[in-house]
Parts: sequence; C-alpha cells; structure tokens
Amino acid sequence: MQPLDSQLRFLLEADRLKGVLRQSRIIDGSRRENSAEHSWHLGLMSLVLGEYAPPGTDLGRVTAMLLVHDLVEIDAGDLFVYVGEQAQARQEEAERAAADRLFALLPDGQAGTVRALWDEFEERRTPEARFARALDLLQPMLANYEQGGGTWAQHSVPASQVLAKVALIEDGSRTLGQYARELISAAVSRGFLAP
Amino acid sequence: MQPLDSQLRFLLEADRLKGVLRQSRIIDGSRRENSAEHSWHLGLMSLVLGEYAPPGTDLGRVTAMLLVHDLVEIDAGDLFVYVGEQAQARQEEAERAAADRLFALLPDGQAGTVRALWDEFEERRTPEARFARALDLLQPMLANYEQGGGTWAQHSVPASQVLAKVALIEDGSRTLGQYARELISAAVSRGFLAP
Repeated sequence: MQPLDSQLRFLLEADRLKGVLRQSRIIDGSRRENSAEHSWHLGLMSLVLGEYAPPGTDLGRVTAMLLVHDLVEIDAGDLFVYVGEQAQARQEEAERAAADRLFALLPDGQAGTVRALWDEFEERRTPEARFARALDLLQPMLANYEQGGGTWAQHSVPASQVLAKVALIEDGSRTLGQYARELISAAVSRGFLAP
Repeated sequence: MQPLDSQLRFLLEADRLKGVLRQSRIIDGSRRENSAEHSWHLGLMSLVLGEYAPPGTDLGRVTAMLLVHDLVEIDAGDLFVYVGEQAQARQEEAERAAADRLFALLPDGQAGTVRALWDEFEERRTPEARFARALDLLQPMLANYEQGGGTWAQHSVPASQVLAKVALIEDGSRTLGQYARELISAAVSRGFLAP
C-alpha cells in the first residue's frame, strides 16, 4: 500500500470519533457532545489561550496533541472524568490497545510520531502535555457552569472532586487554574455544584 | 473586561459551530456532519498529510486556519459547495459580516491576528491557504466516495463540476490533486457520479 493510501485509510477510520458521545452536552444543552467536535473546541482553545501556557511552551505541539488525544475512544469509548480508580485502570488498558491498533494504520515512520504525541499527552510530563490537559479539563467546566450544573448536577459530583481536577489545570497553567478555582466558587455559591 | 473573559466569551460563542449542519454526512452515513467536527477532521488531515504541501509550507498556520475557517458559519450558515455565483456572492457578504462580529469578541490585538488567519484562508494567495483549501475540498470527496455517491448523487452533481474543484485541490497540492482526479475517475466508473 502507498503511504497516501494508508494515511487516507487512517483518516477515514478517524471519522468514527464523530460518533463517540461524551457525558457533557454542547453549551446550548440540546444534545451530548461528541469527541470529534470536543477535540476541535480544544484545538481552538489552544490557539486563543496560548498566552497562558508557561513561557517557551511549543503551542503547535499542544494543538497537535489535542487533535489526536481522543482518537483512542473510537475503540475504548469515552469515560466520564469522575469515576473510580478501577474503571480508570480498565480504561487505560483499553486505550493503549486502541492506540496500538489505530496509529499502526499510518505509514511506519509517521505511526511512531503520532503515537508519540498521544503518549506524551497521556504521560503529562512535558509543559505541552500539562497545558493540553488543562484545556481538556477546563472545557467541560465552562459548559457545566453555562448550563447551571450540567454533568456536575446530573451525576451529583461534589465540589471537592471538581477541585481535584482544578489542581491539574493549575499544573498546566497558573492563570487558567486560578480562573477555574473562581469559577468553581461561583458555581457553588450559585447552587450549580454541591459544596 | 479582562482579556481572559473576552477570550472565554469568544470560545463559548464558538461552541455554536457544533450546531451548524453541512450537506455532507459523516462517513457511516448515519447523520449530517456539523462544521465543528468537520473542522477537527481537517485539522487532523493537516497533521497527517502535511508532507504533500509544497516545501516550506508553514503547517502550523495551515492547522490554525482550518480550525477557524468555518467559524463565520455560526451567523452565515453553511453553503453547499456546488451553488451558483449569486448565492456564493451573498454568502461571502454574510461571512464577512460574521467575521466582523465574531472576531471582535476577542481582545484587540488577538482579534486582528485571528481575523488575518480567516482572511488569508479566504483570499487563497499563500501556499498555506491553498493547501488548507485543498484539504477542505478533498474531505467531502472522500466521504462521497465511501458512501457510493453521497451529496453528488443527492444533488445530481455531474463530474465536470467536481473536476473544477479538483483543479483547486491541485492548486494546493499536486499529489492530493492527482489522487482526487483518480478518485473521481473511479467514482464515475463505479456509477457513484454522473459523467
């Protein structure tokens, strides 16, 4: 198979991410969000909010990571962010198997490059991966706030659990972490989130 | 308003792109594609197919352009690619008005930068804009082929009209243009597209 044929096969397979539904709803509340449009929103956030990443962060790599980070959900499905450790461990295994299958559709050299982006996001060791993760966590908080509770209310998530995620946002961006902390306070005082 | 507040207001407004439906369907044919998930798919294509852009193309700018290029459809809606010149001219006016409104939600300096990306895509003068446009035109062709006709069949589009778009793909990438030309030939010989 020619490289271009492999690449287009991968891109057609990637289309299935449009059918993976998340717990979160789009902002107007009309339906659940899918992981493809969520990934677009995160890519746009990386363009607009890049100034809040630590100095020297390679924003192009942040955007690239965000565009590929959810592809594994094609096989593994989306996991709600507030679940127990066992469910999380099972999900991680399913996602690694999905990464093995999906990225191998690409031509040899490129498969490694794209897989490395996904691994980097998962390992969260670099400033780029931490900033990308901060955006991934902030986006549904913004939606929940706009919706007067959203998945927080639906799944009775208490503020303490949300604040644990805020710490991860702070880990990627001090400014965005502080913003998220204020948002959570406001959500509690407006009754969108149980204290 | 603080810059971050303006930026988040813009990003919440951008969420509405998830509600703009295109004529094309997602590859499995189950429903129409929205412009947000389409933009994600194009961003991913820019990462995977970058080697087919002319040497020296700034691929980061291509990705950024693709993530913002459809935002104006929040106000102007999506226009089917095969329409007459009058409808096209009306659409261009509506899109300029939308760009004026939407990008002005961003803080001053950033509004200009993001608007410039949109203008660059629309003007198609740079290699980056031409390559981005090539991907934007190739993606629905791939979907139509996979679906055995898709919007070509639905709207009785003849091959001559599709080939005019193939010329624009060639203008952005010789290799992708040639691939598209072969795809159209195959589509005609398999009866997916009227000769």
